[in-house]
Amino acid sequence: MTSYEKFSEQDHLNITAVRMLSVDQIEKANSGHPGLPLGTAPAVYALWSRILRHNPANPQWPDRDRFVLSPGHGSTLLYSLLNLFGYDLPIDELKRFRQYGSKTPGHPEQGHTAGVETTTGPLGQGVSNAVGMALAERFLAGHFNEPDFPIINHHTYALVGDGDLMEGISHEALSFAGQQKLNKLICLFDDNNITIEGKATLACADDAEMRFKSYGWNVLRVYDGNDAAAIAAALEQARASQDKPTVIIMKTHIGNGSPRQDTPSAHGEPLGEKNWRATREFYKWTEPQFEIPEEIRNSFAEIAASRAREEEKWHALFDAYTRKFPAKAEEFRQWLDGKLPSAWWQAVPLFAGKEGAMASRESGGKVLNAIADVLPNLIGGSADLAPSTKTALTKYPERTLHFGIREHAMGAIVNGMALHGGVIPFSSTFFVFTDYMRPAMRMAALMGTHSIFVFTHDSIGVGEDGPTHQAVEHLSAMRAMPRMTLLRPGDANETAAAWISAIQHKGPSCIVLTRQKLELLDCDPQYVRDSAARGAYVTHAPASGKPEVVIIGTGSEAKVAQLAAQKLCGEGVNASSVSMPSFELFRAQDKRYRDGVLPPGVKRVAVEAGTSMCWREFVGEDGAFVCVEDYGVSAPYSEVFKHFGITVDNVADKARKLVRG
Amino acid sequence: MTSYEKFSEQDHLNITAVRMLSVDQIEKANSGHPGLPLGTAPAVYALWSRILRHNPANPQWPDRDRFVLSPGHGSTLLYSLLNLFGYDLPIDELKRFRQYGSKTPGHPEQGHTAGVETTTGPLGQGVSNAVGMALAERFLAGHFNEPDFPIINHHTYALVGDGDLMEGISHEALSFAGQQKLNKLICLFDDNNITIEGKATLACADDAEMRFKSYGWNVLRVYDGNDAAAIAAALEQARASQDKPTVIIMKTHIGNGSPRQDTPSAHGEPLGEKNWRATREFYKWTEPQFEIPEEIRNSFAEIAASRAREEEKWHALFDAYTRKFPAKAEEFRQWLDGKLPSAWWQAVPLFAGKEGAMASRESGGKVLNAIADVLPNLIGGSADLAPSTKTALTKYPERTLHFGIREHAMGAIVNGMALHGGVIPFSSTFFVFTDYMRPAMRMAALMGTHSIFVFTHDSIGVGEDGPTHQAVEHLSAMRAMPRMTLLRPGDANETAAAWISAIQHKGPSCIVLTRQKLELLDCDPQYVRDSAARGAYVTHAPASGKPEVVIIGTGSEAKVAQLAAQKLCGEGVNASSVSMPSFELFRAQDKRYRDGVLPPGVKRVAVEAGTSMCWREFVGEDGAFVCVEDYGVSAPYSEVFKHFGITVDNVADKARKLVRG
Repeated sequence: MTSYEKFSEQDHLNITAVRMLSVDQIEKANSGHPGLPLGTAPAVYALWSRILRHNPANPQWPDRDRFVLSPGHGSTLLYSLLNLFGYDLPIDELKRFRQYGSKTPGHPEQGHTAGVETTTGPLGQGVSNAVGMALAERFLAGHFNEPDFPIINHHTYALVGDGDLMEGISHEALSFAGQQKLNKLICLFDDNNITIEGKATLACADDAEMRFKSYGWNVLRVYDGNDAAAIAAALEQARASQDKPTVIIMKTHIGNGSPRQDTPSAHGEPLGEKNWRATREFYKWTEPQFEIPEEIRNSFAEIAASRAREEEKWHALFDAYTRKFPAKAEEFRQWLDGKLPSAWWQAVPLFAGKEGAMASRESGGKVLNAIADVLPNLIGGSADLAPSTKTALTKYPERTLHFGIREHAMGAIVNGMALHGGVIPFSSTFFVFTDYMRPAMRMAALMGTHSIFVFTHDSIGVGEDGPTHQAVEHLSAMRAMPRMTLLRPGDANETAAAWISAIQHKGPSCIVLTRQKLELLDCDPQYVRDSAARGAYVTHAPASGKPEVVIIGTGSEAKVAQLAAQKLCGEGVNASSVSMPSFELFRAQDKRYRDGVLPPGVKRVAVEAGTSMCWREFVGEDGAFVCVEDYGVSAPYSEVFKHFGITVDNVADKARKLVRG
Repeated sequence: MTSYEKFSEQDHLNITAVRMLSVDQIEKANSGHPGLPLGTAPAVYALWSRILRHNPANPQWPDRDRFVLSPGHGSTLLYSLLNLFGYDLPIDELKRFRQYGSKTPGHPEQGHTAGVETTTGPLGQGVSNAVGMALAERFLAGHFNEPDFPIINHHTYALVGDGDLMEGISHEALSFAGQQKLNKLICLFDDNNITIEGKATLACADDAEMRFKSYGWNVLRVYDGNDAAAIAAALEQARASQDKPTVIIMKTHIGNGSPRQDTPSAHGEPLGEKNWRATREFYKWTEPQFEIPEEIRNSFAEIAASRAREEEKWHALFDAYTRKFPAKAEEFRQWLDGKLPSAWWQAVPLFAGKEGAMASRESGGKVLNAIADVLPNLIGGSADLAPSTKTALTKYPERTLHFGIREHAMGAIVNGMALHGGVIPFSSTFFVFTDYMRPAMRMAALMGTHSIFVFTHDSIGVGEDGPTHQAVEHLSAMRAMPRMTLLRPGDANETAAAWISAIQHKGPSCIVLTRQKLELLDCDPQYVRDSAARGAYVTHAPASGKPEVVIIGTGSEAKVAQLAAQKLCGEGVNASSVSMPSFELFRAQDKRYRDGVLPPGVKRVAVEAGTSMCWREFVGEDGAFVCVEDYGVSAPYSEVFKHFGITVDNVADKARKLVRG
């Protein structure tokens, strides 16, 4: 135990400054959540001032401790700390809290504000990201550290609230962390027993200590959340845990010191002038709004400087490491900078001939494993479906994660790993379960994390498992999500292209694969692989003359489209076919390319085993669809396709009727 | 404790019959999951033969006990039991397991197969539905029962597996059930320690007993899952619980008795001829496939008859109740039949004049509360957001539920209440959190349950809370879901119409409301209310002549569309406006009506604060959109609308350019 017995008078002034600066922001904006910063300022100050290894001047230092504010609505707490500790967040930005164009949005946004490790707000996401960060840390430490050279050796801290812990995702993430024995993950539970509708016990009677213990966590308690020294001591104790993550359950008071203390109204409404004044009186704070006395600023600066020395020490260590292990040091820099080895994609096989006919989940597994050979920081796994999704890294058990039947946390953990940096993480499950992961996928898209989400069993092609497991609306629903790249490859070579795109793309991707076998497209394999990267390309053209109709397909229907076009050409109808594995990649092409693939004025038919909503953009009013507009049925998959008319004959008929009536 | 010390030889034969009939189905289909039926047949047989109050001849008996097979992949177990106990599921249907058009789909489907209480498969949904069923039972018992007349007095049983319990939704539902002290909810945990990727401990090290206790559950253990007598005794003990739900943790063996016992391969693959024969040998079963000896059929028939006597007793009780409390008995019949009081909608207020200008969450709250006065079986609540969603039933605290910060379970609990029958349940939260509830909403749509999902804070109109809380893609994503009716009303009278539709519609509805204030549409209030029920209608027409352009809006943008059309008419551009609160209701109108609202050949502009994907159906290739194609920003809402160009001027400009260039 170190010397946290007493926090000085100055510390208490500093804590008051954090509280006051937080409520000042909210009053100015006339919008925000004062309850959390007032209640948890002592705890988070204790962490940031005594424990957290961070350097405000370099928020990108790779071995910094991570801090996650899981209840993102308490953003002013974070903004106050960032400002006072000297991060790049001037006081003028705090004055523009929640205003258009400011660095201080309502909820903290990663990539937008220096020092914000992850975007939080939707409850449960932050704490699950933290699990991913701790997992990435352990993997990188295992890979890079050498005796006496712990170049990766940091902790992940998360403040969590009642809301985080009621959300189902917290169960998944905390249980996973316990099973994984992530001892460098430490949560501070803001146990204030108040939620929006009243006392938390109105809806929740969980024994939190017992619950955490059931997951294999170490549980510490601080009975006075205002006792910064006790919290610092508990944090120090938590850091000593060798085989368990730790939660520190802190009894706190929402809106501490305000007239609304311990009431729901403290949560999400500005205090209002009168209460704001009363709160300042309670804390004996007489400074003008947003003004921080020099002595307090100086004190924070001193603390920040002492914290920053940790980075200096680390650089000395890393320099020595570089001399002793130059290749590993170079690899470390590459990984942390997100750089890929040159020509890495040459490892990806080309599929040709009869050997190329396989389910895209199978070709996906082959491609993934080939990539894993050349990208040793590719790490991921499945929500207990690896034998079905074919995503186990067979040669690399240490990089194959077992997420358990926890799709939602899996998504958020993958995001956390990506946010940590140094690794390229992926997840996998069935496509219908995007619904279970969607909140995490949205966060990936919003933040632009390099998260790779693999989904197999992508349509009615699931067959016998029936409508509960047959994705139908999920292609439209996922394509509706801004900034998410969806790739639904049509054969093994398109699958290779999809994986290459997903690895090279810096944002999130969603790779959508079949359960059932796919023939190779009847095209040159290299052409397929190169062209698929452009999102859409011609897979069949009439022998002569312009096409009268273009048939567009994706995934398992790319081949249907091609065969239908070939059939029509055989009948004297000039049809071409297009495979369109990615709307997003195709939209990013120039108009000339796009017009080449989908010639303006030529009628179009889309075939896809999913709802048609997303297709109208490409098919237009004159076009036609062969889509699946209702839930599926349980039967062998070929019968299900027949039931919905997803057949070469039906598609050819539709196309013929469209142009010949 | 009753006399379950010994189950007879006949019982053991019966259990073997359940097992064999289950694997027979799977072998015939060459598809399915043998592990669960082999492992849990004794437990579920003990329940169905000794404990469950059910009448195979009348699966609709309102006071029956409910049984939920939460791991729906074990469907053959249910089909075997339904067949053997004499439900309407002939052996020929079992021979067509997982085949096109059979009554035995891959996962059990409520409404499709008699005796199936809920559709299961996506893990965690079933157990959460069971919580809803138990909640409905308690509410109805409280409302209808009189001393000596417990006309509603049944239990809800759920078989749950490792997968259910790893899913986050289980945390939400079990924690809620514990807090609610749902003592008539009893779970049987099939604790076999095997999941698809290996031993469950590969991914999960939870102490299940401690976990359930942390939620306030009663925990019983049966160390031999083959000991039907011990399970029956534990069930009896569980029924005696007065203030806690109970879980019986049963140590079972997946694939019990097959060569694949205790291995992951027992889970989801047919045994195959050789293992199937070995399994039959293990159980000394020599009957031809699908044949059940007469003595076994007779034994099941006897048991079924004895079980059915419970319904006879109940009818005697209900007849006496009807004599003594005729009005309540009539109400009971109405509620259970899903009938509404005549002209109930007259209670819904009409909004006019200045008083009508309010956020639709506010008018929604007023309408909901007015309906609650005339529909005393309307029950629901919020995921800890009632002060924001305005969905508290202010006069009826006993019908106001506090779901806690548990959106996903809230959805599934609402579905469970609807499945139980007798009540009209609703939920509420922010619209962006449809993502958290989507798997449950999909189940509602698939089953067609009368679930009402209310969402407020429906767009960038959320303002300061920023992109994490501003729904953008959610309108498209929800409209992509088959069989879900989405209603996004444009003013207070449209909100009234939306609620009336949602109550009258037998399937699920999604009511989408604003945070921000809305003016009334500039139309006759009664016209608005009547017309909104048709999904779309004209809100402004040019004074003379045909429109050159139609501007369509929904929700907060319905008024923008109207004002833009009025502005254009003032400038001499013949514009009309349409409010389209529901795509689904509009599509259901006849062509003549639809063409009247959206005249063919007239160009269209859609304005909606969401992604445009869903609009192409109505706007076509010639049309234009004013939509929100990217994530929002944190700022006061009027600035966010300006940022995205959702303004009268911008919409009018777009429309003018469209027709005048």
